[in-house]
Amino acid sequence: MGSTERIRNVAKRVAKWARAGHQMVVVPSAMSGETNRLLALAGELAPDHPETPYYRELDMLAATGEQASSALLAIALQAEGLDAVSYTGWQVPVRTDSSYTKARIESIDPERVRADLDAGRVVIITGFQGIDPLGNITTLGRGGSDTSAVAVAAALKADECLIYTDVDGVYTTDPRVVPAARRLNSVSFEEMLEMASLGSKVLQIRSVEFAGKYKVPMRVLSSFTSWDIDLAEEAKSGTLITFEEDEKMEKAVVSGIAFNRGEAKISVRGVPDTPGIAAAILGPVADANIDVDVIIQNISKDGKTDFSFTVSQTDYQRALDLLREKVAPELGAAEVVGNPNIAKVSIVGIGMRSHVGVASTMFRTLAQEGVNIQMISTSEIKTSVVIDEKYLELAVRALHTAFGLDKVE
Amino acid sequence: MGSTERIRNVAKRVAKWARAGHQMVVVPSAMSGETNRLLALAGELAPDHPETPYYRELDMLAATGEQASSALLAIALQAEGLDAVSYTGWQVPVRTDSSYTKARIESIDPERVRADLDAGRVVIITGFQGIDPLGNITTLGRGGSDTSAVAVAAALKADECLIYTDVDGVYTTDPRVVPAARRLNSVSFEEMLEMASLGSKVLQIRSVEFAGKYKVPMRVLSSFTSWDIDLAEEAKSGTLITFEEDEKMEKAVVSGIAFNRGEAKISVRGVPDTPGIAAAILGPVADANIDVDVIIQNISKDGKTDFSFTVSQTDYQRALDLLREKVAPELGAAEVVGNPNIAKVSIVGIGMRSHVGVASTMFRTLAQEGVNIQMISTSEIKTSVVIDEKYLELAVRALHTAFGLDKVE
Repeated sequence: MGSTERIRNVAKRVAKWARAGHQMVVVPSAMSGETNRLLALAGELAPDHPETPYYRELDMLAATGEQASSALLAIALQAEGLDAVSYTGWQVPVRTDSSYTKARIESIDPERVRADLDAGRVVIITGFQGIDPLGNITTLGRGGSDTSAVAVAAALKADECLIYTDVDGVYTTDPRVVPAARRLNSVSFEEMLEMASLGSKVLQIRSVEFAGKYKVPMRVLSSFTSWDIDLAEEAKSGTLITFEEDEKMEKAVVSGIAFNRGEAKISVRGVPDTPGIAAAILGPVADANIDVDVIIQNISKDGKTDFSFTVSQTDYQRALDLLREKVAPELGAAEVVGNPNIAKVSIVGIGMRSHVGVASTMFRTLAQEGVNIQMISTSEIKTSVVIDEKYLELAVRALHTAFGLDKVE
Repeated sequence: MGSTERIRNVAKRVAKWARAGHQMVVVPSAMSGETNRLLALAGELAPDHPETPYYRELDMLAATGEQASSALLAIALQAEGLDAVSYTGWQVPVRTDSSYTKARIESIDPERVRADLDAGRVVIITGFQGIDPLGNITTLGRGGSDTSAVAVAAALKADECLIYTDVDGVYTTDPRVVPAARRLNSVSFEEMLEMASLGSKVLQIRSVEFAGKYKVPMRVLSSFTSWDIDLAEEAKSGTLITFEEDEKMEKAVVSGIAFNRGEAKISVRGVPDTPGIAAAILGPVADANIDVDVIIQNISKDGKTDFSFTVSQTDYQRALDLLREKVAPELGAAEVVGNPNIAKVSIVGIGMRSHVGVASTMFRTLAQEGVNIQMISTSEIKTSVVIDEKYLELAVRALHTAFGLDKVE
């Protein structure tokens, strides 16, 4: 939520739903820029800090952003003539573990909220935060308001969890790369999970996981539409993330093309193919706090194998140095080579489970465009390839067309 | 507290006390301007509002200011190398009634705080707020952080409650009116209460009442001194509000001259002197939500009496109209006259209890300066006179000198 003008618009939109007879629970994020403002103040005060007590206080601090916006939304709803009440995470309560700044929701007590809904009130619950077993305020980390909303919807067994975002839904791929990209009317939970984990930034991945665990239908829709659009139209807008594999979904073999820029590839060549080799290579990498994405181990030849993986470009040089200076000499590897400019492209589709030849269509399409595939990784509903970064847009566009995802004008 | 620079200075000051072996509990106010900023946002959203639900949300909103500054102070103390933890009102808990925006503290549970202090931690408690029996956040109203600090000090049986303000203590009178005004090293609780109620804005009157009830020694001192001044010097600075009438205090008959500008006087003349006349006149005034200060009823003459009282200048015309149009005709009063430009000057001193002639010194001093006294009102430790507003400064200066309060250069 941005200015008071935006809060007023949210209130009018909520009021529209409430007046149509829906029991409404709203989980607002902080006002635009507020969380960053607060964390910047903390950063000014403590450039170097002891971890746990500092993180506890960061959560005390950051939680105020949502508390303020929730109270303001309640006030705006009252000004609209509705009965509205706001609750902080601890008032509901939303119980979490004690992992400050990245806590996980453990349970939500729906009774207090349910009583208010039954009394005809709109209930506002601060997103992003909860209370730990010792009564400390915790926050769920960035994007946590989405997760809060899904968790609240699950606890109350809501019909649907509407996530208002700055985009109007989930697309077949990024429209900035492929102008022909289409908005999906619905997408399965598993597909959404793959797309979120593959860099589609529409929803925080934890919120999707949560929705999956508790089977909460989520709808991603735009907060930029006018509040007074027709309710029936709004209720069908955006993208529904669903758990029912309906017929329509069966038709689409591939639902979307996801991609990650900014990756880098590292190969350790000619390592002795003995048990524990993956751990011997990736253990030190993980210890250096470097996230590894795709991992490939080639078949062995003459008792030696090649081991490749991708990391983010920002970690590339550090990972390369680590492997060259410490890991490779210890393992007796032949050499460590890398490519700091690769990208990952993935086709995602629940229909891939029951359709053969999807991966080969992908490989053929890329071959026709002259795009060399450097690594391949597959899962049940997705196939990912690592390619030279410079071919990324070309590859995404070609695949989008090949799988029939282009918008029909 | 203002910028992060000011928070850092507060942290250094607290660290100085803590390192000298004091167990410290700190009750910060919100960062400068923050409470006004938040309330302005609420005002934008709800120009007209239903009372109770709106006030509940205002408290949710306003409480975030102190929560943020408390977390930031904890972070700043940690950066100073101290172990520090912040608690909101509900975490302590500070229990209040449910009078949103002007709640009263009912009890404070000292156990959690005591455990932290015993573990060597500095404890920060959000001022200005608490939790009601139903688990709602409440605030104590403007200046409530002072009251919170005193209440916490009482609950923990603290040696002293230091109130850091923008002045360096309590003065014999306002130094802007009397340059010779002196800072008092100590003042009795009763005197402070009279001075606070008479318009000395150093401390919120409720905090003084609270200190009186629980016998908490308070010290008013300046937040603008450098944090690294000598601790022993700082511990003696400012003004101590005390409950022990020591010898030094006995010597001063009058401790200070308080005054109120901006008052107005109204007289209802020639009303029949029958029982219930005060209620018949002041009842309608109170019903119109007009605060009355000094009230005087003259002795009766021929079965008629004159009844005078003062109100603030902003309420003057409304009160006058009400009395002339409704009250006076019903009572058969001769006339209603008023003076919209009067001021009240009071001498305050616990020594007045045991000294005769104090009031007459006051009247003689004013007579010598040619100041006409329009009304007189007395209590055990104060004598107030109502005079023409234009003589206010003259009267205050003359009385300050007459009672030996001037600074000795």
